[in-house]
Amino acid sequence: MSVYTPVSEDELAAWLRNYSVGALASCEPIKSGIENTNYFVTTSQGRYVLTLFERLPADELPFYLNLMAHLARHGIPCPAPIANLADQYLGALNGKPAALVTRLAGRSLEDPGVAHCEELGALLARMHLAGRSYGAYLENPRGPKWWRFAAQAVKGFLQKSQAEMLEKELAYQSGQRFPDLPRGPVHADLFRDNALFDGARLSGVIDFYFAGVDCLLYDLAVCANDWCLGKDAALDAKRTQALLSSYHAVRPFTGLEREAWPAMLRAAALRFWLSRLYDFHLPRPGMLVHAHDPEHFRRVLESRVAAPAAWVA
Amino acid sequence: MSVYTPVSEDELAAWLRNYSVGALASCEPIKSGIENTNYFVTTSQGRYVLTLFERLPADELPFYLNLMAHLARHGIPCPAPIANLADQYLGALNGKPAALVTRLAGRSLEDPGVAHCEELGALLARMHLAGRSYGAYLENPRGPKWWRFAAQAVKGFLQKSQAEMLEKELAYQSGQRFPDLPRGPVHADLFRDNALFDGARLSGVIDFYFAGVDCLLYDLAVCANDWCLGKDAALDAKRTQALLSSYHAVRPFTGLEREAWPAMLRAAALRFWLSRLYDFHLPRPGMLVHAHDPEHFRRVLESRVAAPAAWVA
Repeated sequence: MSVYTPVSEDELAAWLRNYSVGALASCEPIKSGIENTNYFVTTSQGRYVLTLFERLPADELPFYLNLMAHLARHGIPCPAPIANLADQYLGALNGKPAALVTRLAGRSLEDPGVAHCEELGALLARMHLAGRSYGAYLENPRGPKWWRFAAQAVKGFLQKSQAEMLEKELAYQSGQRFPDLPRGPVHADLFRDNALFDGARLSGVIDFYFAGVDCLLYDLAVCANDWCLGKDAALDAKRTQALLSSYHAVRPFTGLEREAWPAMLRAAALRFWLSRLYDFHLPRPGMLVHAHDPEHFRRVLESRVAAPAAWVA
Repeated sequence: MSVYTPVSEDELAAWLRNYSVGALASCEPIKSGIENTNYFVTTSQGRYVLTLFERLPADELPFYLNLMAHLARHGIPCPAPIANLADQYLGALNGKPAALVTRLAGRSLEDPGVAHCEELGALLARMHLAGRSYGAYLENPRGPKWWRFAAQAVKGFLQKSQAEMLEKELAYQSGQRFPDLPRGPVHADLFRDNALFDGARLSGVIDFYFAGVDCLLYDLAVCANDWCLGKDAALDAKRTQALLSSYHAVRPFTGLEREAWPAMLRAAALRFWLSRLYDFHLPRPGMLVHAHDPEHFRRVLESRVAAPAAWVA
């Protein structure tokens, strides 16, 4: 489980007196999650998630919290940070930076269908449009600079063929620069387990702690590589089309975005291959969850290289 | 009904493209409400209320909308204004200032009991604490200055005994100044029909368009004169006690507040007697709803003068 910093009911009840959310009714540790300590918190007022930030740089936290607040007030169903009586989203609890956010209804899906990918595409487009008026800036913390850092760190652990594949992809990507693609805040980690469905309706997008400013298309590539996965790590054409065309109906793609799609899918695969290699070979001290198998995203990348996805929207 | 400015589905669907709330599914005029035009709006994303402001001074609207946004982000269950793609809460529709806010679940109660008054007291206290970090200022628009204006305007319509009673109360109130009572943004119109219950839980406080900065105790007096009304316009002791003691548990009253309570109940009764006299005798052109009978609040005031309420918390 991933509770790095325990919080007793008494400590939580006292801490909640800094907020306008009523008295503590119950709390329950959340066992998924790798980066932070999370609790479900229920008060006389409502249902919340408490997050104690274990590793994120303190100066980046306002970017994430203010982004969620910005999107929530635009009607995007994401966790809304609750301000405390000092009018701050960020507090401290048991020595860690801590925030309370609304808890959204719904549950994540293991096997999303065409209709779910349609919902996702439309919401992602609305989220991108709403995000464009967000004033703060944080470079995507898992962008090209980080790829080079991570590749350097993991290359000693790789078999020769893998090291060559990595080298080749980095060289390819360094030739791909898209200064004219629409940019803005992106979630950058919108895997199936970060989306909640309430029946057929996408009722929540959670976990914005990998967000940053990047090409909007990159968010779609991350989603496609997870939500639209078909046989042998290829993209399922119907789900991919549903994702792209429902997005396009809300925020029409530019011609440059269509051209950039195959490279963007490779970039999104590379990023997760690298982070999984990194967590696998260089686990951080105290990391309580087993790392994902890096091999999955190596195969996704291999598939995107071997058979560049045709644009389908 | 109170739809002063009709909005067609086509007009609304087009207007909603300025927002991140998805496509229009349905809309329905709201027939209660006197001051504004309101619609229930359902989109692919959620449920909202659209308000077209018919009479409120445009320079006051940001105070109300930002107050609701402030309280909502502190966890107070009030309508949260939705920002448009230009990042503004206030837009324009069919020539009127217009805003979209979240629609809260629940329904108002005609006969609240002791437990409901307890819920109300606790929420009011949380709302007042959350409101104290709100930076904007608007004097209560129905405060003592307005009383004198309204009294002047209606006195020609009153019977002699009523005119004398009004004169006497204004003279009494002008001797009552409470510079040392805790102040902050107050709802100032939290009648039963402006509170929504979802079962036993107070799930929403709505209609902040009479809010302003005043003594916090004034909000309680407005509530008591409506929620705790007993026989012959007297206060029901049990409901009043529930209201005050649940409030006190969250924000303890000061000694001065206890002393001010009888005068504050009279002030709250006077304010609504005056506004109902005003709307009754001087209806605004185009006013589509029959004015409330002013006599009710004259009797409430008479009862508070004859039998000053003992403090019961």
